[in-house]
Amino acid sequence: MSDRVEDLARAFERFPGIGPRQARRFVYHLLSLPLTERTRISDLVSRLAENVRQCPECYRYANGNGPVCNYCSDASRDDSILLIVEKDQDLLALERAGTYKGRYFVLGGVLTLSGKGTIREKELLRAVEKRKNVLKEIILALSATSEGEITTDHLKEKLLPYRDHITLSVLGRGLATGSELEYSDAETLSGALQNRKET
Amino acid sequence: MSDRVEDLARAFERFPGIGPRQARRFVYHLLSLPLTERTRISDLVSRLAENVRQCPECYRYANGNGPVCNYCSDASRDDSILLIVEKDQDLLALERAGTYKGRYFVLGGVLTLSGKGTIREKELLRAVEKRKNVLKEIILALSATSEGEITTDHLKEKLLPYRDHITLSVLGRGLATGSELEYSDAETLSGALQNRKET
Amino acid sequence: MSDRVEDLARAFERFPGIGPRQARRFVYHLLSLPLTERTRISDLVSRLAENVRQCPECYRYANGNGPVCNYCSDASRDDSILLIVEKDQDLLALERAGTYKGRYFVLGGVLTLSGKGTIREKELLRAVEKRKNVLKEIILALSATSEGEITTDHLKEKLLPYRDHITLSVLGRGLATGSELEYSDAETLSGALQNRKET
Amino acid sequence: MSDRVEDLARAFERFPGIGPRQARRFVYHLLSLPLTERTRISDLVSRLAENVRQCPECYRYANGNGPVCNYCSDASRDDSILLIVEKDQDLLALERAGTYKGRYFVLGGVLTLSGKGTIREKELLRAVEKRKNVLKEIILALSATSEGEITTDHLKEKLLPYRDHITLSVLGRGLATGSELEYSDAETLSGALQNRKET
Repeated sequence: MSDRVEDLARAFERFPGIGPRQARRFVYHLLSLPLTERTRISDLVSRLAENVRQCPECYRYANGNGPVCNYCSDASRDDSILLIVEKDQDLLALERAGTYKGRYFVLGGVLTLSGKGTIREKELLRAVEKRKNVLKEIILALSATSEGEITTDHLKEKLLPYRDHITLSVLGRGLATGSELEYSDAETLSGALQNRKET
Repeated sequence: MSDRVEDLARAFERFPGIGPRQARRFVYHLLSLPLTERTRISDLVSRLAENVRQCPECYRYANGNGPVCNYCSDASRDDSILLIVEKDQDLLALERAGTYKGRYFVLGGVLTLSGKGTIREKELLRAVEKRKNVLKEIILALSATSEGEITTDHLKEKLLPYRDHITLSVLGRGLATGSELEYSDAETLSGALQNRKET
Repeated sequence: MSDRVEDLARAFERFPGIGPRQARRFVYHLLSLPLTERTRISDLVSRLAENVRQCPECYRYANGNGPVCNYCSDASRDDSILLIVEKDQDLLALERAGTYKGRYFVLGGVLTLSGKGTIREKELLRAVEKRKNVLKEIILALSATSEGEITTDHLKEKLLPYRDHITLSVLGRGLATGSELEYSDAETLSGALQNRKET
Repeated sequence: MSDRVEDLARAFERFPGIGPRQARRFVYHLLSLPLTERTRISDLVSRLAENVRQCPECYRYANGNGPVCNYCSDASRDDSILLIVEKDQDLLALERAGTYKGRYFVLGGVLTLSGKGTIREKELLRAVEKRKNVLKEIILALSATSEGEITTDHLKEKLLPYRDHITLSVLGRGLATGSELEYSDAETLSGALQNRKET
């Protein structure tokens, strides 16, 4: 079909988790919509970043007009803790949990097993350097996956110079919702035992 | 976040096979793109239907400026056979197979088990009536699913008046690529035996 | 635990589709049964082959006291067709379909992509040689998988000497129950079109 | 086929996670084995419980000749902690983790959402009553599933009379191996934050 259809299908193929077949189904879905709805989606895409900006402090996408995002400007949040996540969605999951009240930094990725992957390392080190007098703890809140662990190890090394007065911590291991003991590995079970709590 | 982010996430939720989580990941993917790329996607969406039109004969989406699509205007294709498919992607799969050289009609859906679902029934009957003097065969090429069979049965009834001089046929049953005998049902195996061929 | 538990778990690990974890669950399941039920299962296993024998003609497992199995001894079945399947379960699936009334031969396996795998080749060639004067067709009824195709090709070569008076055939390709056109490959769709039938 | 084949297939259908098709594949697998191997499996099944007995203290299956199992008789294990698991496999997973050195009790099941299910409640209460003077902590180590939680709640109620001098605890929540923050629920993330540890 037209180059336009192919071009759009190829753009959809770069969406996370989308293969060539589903990318084409998206194009047919759009073709089947009334013109007004297609125009509305086009407008939403083009104007998406108008109110939404990447915060220059924590690098998350947020809307607002201030110099930094609402979490970074919220005076009630604890300046002495900085929590590092891979991506915006992880930060939102933590906010939904509702128990963390410190500051955030969005790394923008993880390192792969082969040591590749781009993360905001320089930006992180700059942010830590800038706040080194108020910071007491940095939580490396990466996923409990191989890539998360490689990234954690890499950051621990880079943050070495700050370890004399800033505590580095990682999220606790234990039973995640849905975990069955029979299928849990030693690290998960040891964490669960160690972190057991009175009930 | 902003209503714009939410609105776009909700539009993505209506894409085929997409849930709320993935819809949000799409929005973050778009936010992470450079402005030029986001603008390009927005343009592709808004101008998608400029060159691509629904062919008034076969109802598939195709580009071109002629009154009908390139398959409908192709004089080398056989006017005496009409093959009915559910959707554009089915037609494209048949074209990739490369053995069919007749005409097409895209039904635009199938009937559900409860008899619901909108299909281009009136349009089909009009197309058949118009070509009844050249048509020798109509192939009801619907999927081998319950919904495909319900739709086939419904169309057979509607096409009853033409059956004295137009043959109605359905696609042959047999082993699909990957089929294992042990897990095949009686209809598939009976078709495979009946359609066995010398090798 | 005891060697006996370990030995039984290891025997279950060799059951088709069973890994180490499920093998151990089977042992615990057996341990949780009353002694009488465990004894009953043990008896069923040890006496399994008492009435069930491998037929010396078609090599399927069947019960009975005659020299050959009930399909091989059934005078109403057609001696002029021989259908070759990989395993007993494939034969049973064909019998459930109920349309085949010729003779069978169970190959006992397929060849792998690397050309390995043990099949009853000598036994098959002996059976064909013995019946070459009554045989008119041999159906190579292997699954529509890579391994099935490799095995079919191999057998075609080996049966070459008989091809002047015995037809070799393979099962027909087409839509299997559940097949959707969009996801079907060219070979399946070409077969489905070629084998289409009047309805 | 013979009733024996059918009876054995039906026994396999009651094995955990096995459907009718796989049960029949098991029977064919057994038929394909040499007689000596089939006899060996039959013997292993019939004599399975000869050396393996259910320990009258912790109710796990273990081999040995002593009055109780090797964990219950091991003087080096801590008598002041009792850990309650659903089934033998959970206990084995904890032993593989290697950090727990107290006593065990195997509950033999969990309560379902509708409050059904048989667990060794009387046996547990008897064991706790008997050791109430040495016990300092009871760990309710059930899976992080709805059924695990219902069972935990039920046992907490039943153990109420002992809570003045015995601590009741549950396993810690946190990231299990493989957990991604984005897909973790509030309970898992709150546990992971609370149980974070210096690195």
